[in-house]
Amino acid sequence: MAACNRAIVARMDSPVPLIPQLAAHLVAAGGKRLRPLLTLAAARLCGYAPEPGQAARHVGLAACVEFIHTATLLHDDVVDESALRRGLASANAVFGNKASVLVGDFLFARSFQLMTEDGSLEVMAILSRAAATIAEGEVLQMATQNDLSTSMEKYLEVIHGKTAALFAAACRVGGVVAGRPAAETDALDAYGTNLGMAFQLVDDALDYAADQRTLGKTVGDDFREGKITLPVLAAFHAGTDEDRVFWRRVIEQSEQTEADLDHALALIDRTGAIRTTIEHATAYADRACAALGIFPESEVRRLLNEVASYTVSRGR
Amino acid sequence: MAACNRAIVARMDSPVPLIPQLAAHLVAAGGKRLRPLLTLAAARLCGYAPEPGQAARHVGLAACVEFIHTATLLHDDVVDESALRRGLASANAVFGNKASVLVGDFLFARSFQLMTEDGSLEVMAILSRAAATIAEGEVLQMATQNDLSTSMEKYLEVIHGKTAALFAAACRVGGVVAGRPAAETDALDAYGTNLGMAFQLVDDALDYAADQRTLGKTVGDDFREGKITLPVLAAFHAGTDEDRVFWRRVIEQSEQTEADLDHALALIDRTGAIRTTIEHATAYADRACAALGIFPESEVRRLLNEVASYTVSRGR
Repeated sequence: MAACNRAIVARMDSPVPLIPQLAAHLVAAGGKRLRPLLTLAAARLCGYAPEPGQAARHVGLAACVEFIHTATLLHDDVVDESALRRGLASANAVFGNKASVLVGDFLFARSFQLMTEDGSLEVMAILSRAAATIAEGEVLQMATQNDLSTSMEKYLEVIHGKTAALFAAACRVGGVVAGRPAAETDALDAYGTNLGMAFQLVDDALDYAADQRTLGKTVGDDFREGKITLPVLAAFHAGTDEDRVFWRRVIEQSEQTEADLDHALALIDRTGAIRTTIEHATAYADRACAALGIFPESEVRRLLNEVASYTVSRGR
Repeated sequence: MAACNRAIVARMDSPVPLIPQLAAHLVAAGGKRLRPLLTLAAARLCGYAPEPGQAARHVGLAACVEFIHTATLLHDDVVDESALRRGLASANAVFGNKASVLVGDFLFARSFQLMTEDGSLEVMAILSRAAATIAEGEVLQMATQNDLSTSMEKYLEVIHGKTAALFAAACRVGGVVAGRPAAETDALDAYGTNLGMAFQLVDDALDYAADQRTLGKTVGDDFREGKITLPVLAAFHAGTDEDRVFWRRVIEQSEQTEADLDHALALIDRTGAIRTTIEHATAYADRACAALGIFPESEVRRLLNEVASYTVSRGR
């Protein structure tokens, strides 16, 4: 991870000063670096070792994955008009929307330069498809916004696109650099997909449950944006007629007063919508761990299982 | 070009309805398709012919180049808050900023999927570097905004990044698919670079000179945004002290009244700033044509020379 962080900082460089400045802001903000960790761990699980004297491919590709993720974060914050990211002022709040759009584009392009340097067409196919799927997921999320008739299937499609696709690609790439057969790269993909679904479900739960300081984001962001997430869908469907009148007003008509968030939190609590959401997340996390069953037991496999448990425990 | 247009429409497809809708808006808006034309013409100039039974690589890569260009246009219009693009309502005005950011990301990712299918690491290196350079140019342009102390060199660096880099890459790629030696691909790169510089200089001139209906954009956009372009720099430096007080107020302090655009146009006219800009464009166009001198005379070479002349004649 230290080598990966160094690669990230080194390759965010540019003669245009604002780019390293904004990159430094993002790096300083830290973040979990969960996606690059997945690439590194998947490569290790598959016994990858760099050829003597050769560059460690998994490190460069882990940086690549983080660049794609960071680019989408920058663009998300513009799209969502977020003021906070990971508990700090978001880049768009500090540097403006323009800089966030353009530096996001730069990081995206740079990630493809890194992939080209790595030189594997298979890796490029995996990561460019993931990048397209992320954008599709984000567009689909926008299309479901404020729409309480959104089905569970559609919601799962959104979170698969916006989150799980990159988790899956990050894991699969680790297996590909190790030159492992399809059974193993598919298992890593399944682990990543299910972990990503669990992760996003928990994230959506936390937006209605967590203390802002521990989470590093404003509680109620999704609520104010009328974003359709499982806590809202579950509370809407399990609620009374009166509850549904409330949800229609605040989510579909976007008519919200100061007190509405508290009322929404109370309804979510009463209907057990957070518990429902965490149950779904737990099922996905279990499937993620099960997918790793084809690999022999090892320290890295235990680590990946722990990542899945930790992901769900954040929401409890 | 017909095959290229078909490839563009086919590969803009997605199961998420908004993506083909927005893509159709952009395709309907037409545009000159100048960049893909350059890839096709450069490949032909180099005698490229697809292997029998194989896909025509130059067509797919021309579509790729147009996707990168379209993605940057979508993001530009968000950054600039433009209401018009090619004489029609811009995508951000019709579909909103969010959709423009996200569909731009999708097109960018899709362009890398197309490159991966093509399978040439050399092409990928050229186009991913161009994509990074475009983003750098746009960030640099943002950094020079409202700053009349911007040097000519810095201005040229901006337009090289935002425009000439992709023109150069579009041309070079045509030579690379034909498998031509560096002398020829470098010559194509030089043609594209100089053509791109000429093109952007003329574009910057037209923003202060053209009739909105013939240009398909609002005259004075650059002025209202305080964008630093050669017409403004030339008028500022060739103007009187009183002129410079005016320019500082409208460009640096962004204090503009209704009548200021007319006054700016009068100062630009009086100082010959448009003529200066077009003279620079002409010199670049001449260098573009000279770069093609290493290729034997042919119909395609004449076409490329005409593209250079036409580019400059738009500004006369």
